[in-house]
Amino acid sequence: MIFDVLTLFPEMIESYCGFSIMKRAIDAGIVTINAINPRDFTLNKHKKVDDTPYGGGAGMVLMPQPYVDAYESIKQYDNTVTVMLSPQGEPLNDHIVNDLAKYNQMILLCGHYEGFDERIREIIKPREISLGDFVLTGGELPALCLIDAVSRKLEGTLGKIESADEDSFSNGLLEYPHYTKPREYRGLKVPEVLLNGNHKDINAFRLEKSLERTKAKRPDLYNKWLENR
Amino acid sequence: MIFDVLTLFPEMIESYCGFSIMKRAIDAGIVTINAINPRDFTLNKHKKVDDTPYGGGAGMVLMPQPYVDAYESIKQYDNTVTVMLSPQGEPLNDHIVNDLAKYNQMILLCGHYEGFDERIREIIKPREISLGDFVLTGGELPALCLIDAVSRKLEGTLGKIESADEDSFSNGLLEYPHYTKPREYRGLKVPEVLLNGNHKDINAFRLEKSLERTKAKRPDLYNKWLENR
Repeated sequence: MIFDVLTLFPEMIESYCGFSIMKRAIDAGIVTINAINPRDFTLNKHKKVDDTPYGGGAGMVLMPQPYVDAYESIKQYDNTVTVMLSPQGEPLNDHIVNDLAKYNQMILLCGHYEGFDERIREIIKPREISLGDFVLTGGELPALCLIDAVSRKLEGTLGKIESADEDSFSNGLLEYPHYTKPREYRGLKVPEVLLNGNHKDINAFRLEKSLERTKAKRPDLYNKWLENR
Repeated sequence: MIFDVLTLFPEMIESYCGFSIMKRAIDAGIVTINAINPRDFTLNKHKKVDDTPYGGGAGMVLMPQPYVDAYESIKQYDNTVTVMLSPQGEPLNDHIVNDLAKYNQMILLCGHYEGFDERIREIIKPREISLGDFVLTGGELPALCLIDAVSRKLEGTLGKIESADEDSFSNGLLEYPHYTKPREYRGLKVPEVLLNGNHKDINAFRLEKSLERTKAKRPDLYNKWLENR
């Protein structure tokens, strides 16, 4: 999958992608990340990409020309989706991640400081996605979250030792508790059932804990699970 | 505010904080970021920090000893909060950000790959926060989102040219559309009302657009606004 990221801070994208699973997915040829800086496309002689808002108010607004020209410079392949990261978008969830993982190319539009000139939305008509009801300085962190979450779903990204199937939300519930060595730590013991090798018992224990935890922490998810079972 | 981040990938934290508003807040002495690697605390002779789960299953689980020892090595000041980034936590929103901005120190626990050994939760008893109902490779991006969102609320982080007061959610609504130069771009004009300098008209236009947009995109927020007006 190709990710083309429009950002005034390409280094933020590139540095995150040099580590861990993203690095592995890139090295394995599963994903390609390109960071494109609208500043390289501005026709303003001072290289400006933003200006004060018409009508007054605090903050700077991203001008349409550099963003739209940068966007149009990107070679679009078949099966492309363009996403704007914005607090106004649909809040990201696992269903949207699964849906986005079906595309071959994702173009991500990151704002920074204040907002986009509205005409950028009108011309590009992106799908707008939000991380949640809070405000960040730029779209770079949300773009990285989206890249990370989608990349995990692509075949080959996770090795045999990891798995997306048992993650939270894959069955609509929060994950059961995990335990590893040692068997006892500061007086706290690993539950006996996990040590006896009886997989029927282990699965029953894990489902019970998963349900218990979801009911306590996220009754909304629990009720949805009850409806769909 | 001091942010102490427990992570197996300290470079992910450090590299993001070298740019933009985070760099400015650090340079101005408003925030301090420390990244602490539990790997430096493991007593395992192969420097391991994770192991296979009891009861079987894919993925590796973070062992309690390196995490708990790393956590206990952190000097805690007055008015400290410890946050675990996890899909099981309360979904982050602007209210939680405002609440967290009142602390003087935040200790952030990032997992990576699979989960934490449950005993880490039992011993440290962190507040658990989630970015939303989707899964990431690690807690580093959510930790950076939290650091960025909270830092924006601290006095002095945003300069005079930016503002958190007019952001989305600050009044419970999505933000109104922004426009900057030029007045016409590809045939699309800045709305006349923003050019006439009448601030009463401008405010009325912006509130109308804000309401229109919130009603269309986020009826849940719109209804809450109606109830509270």
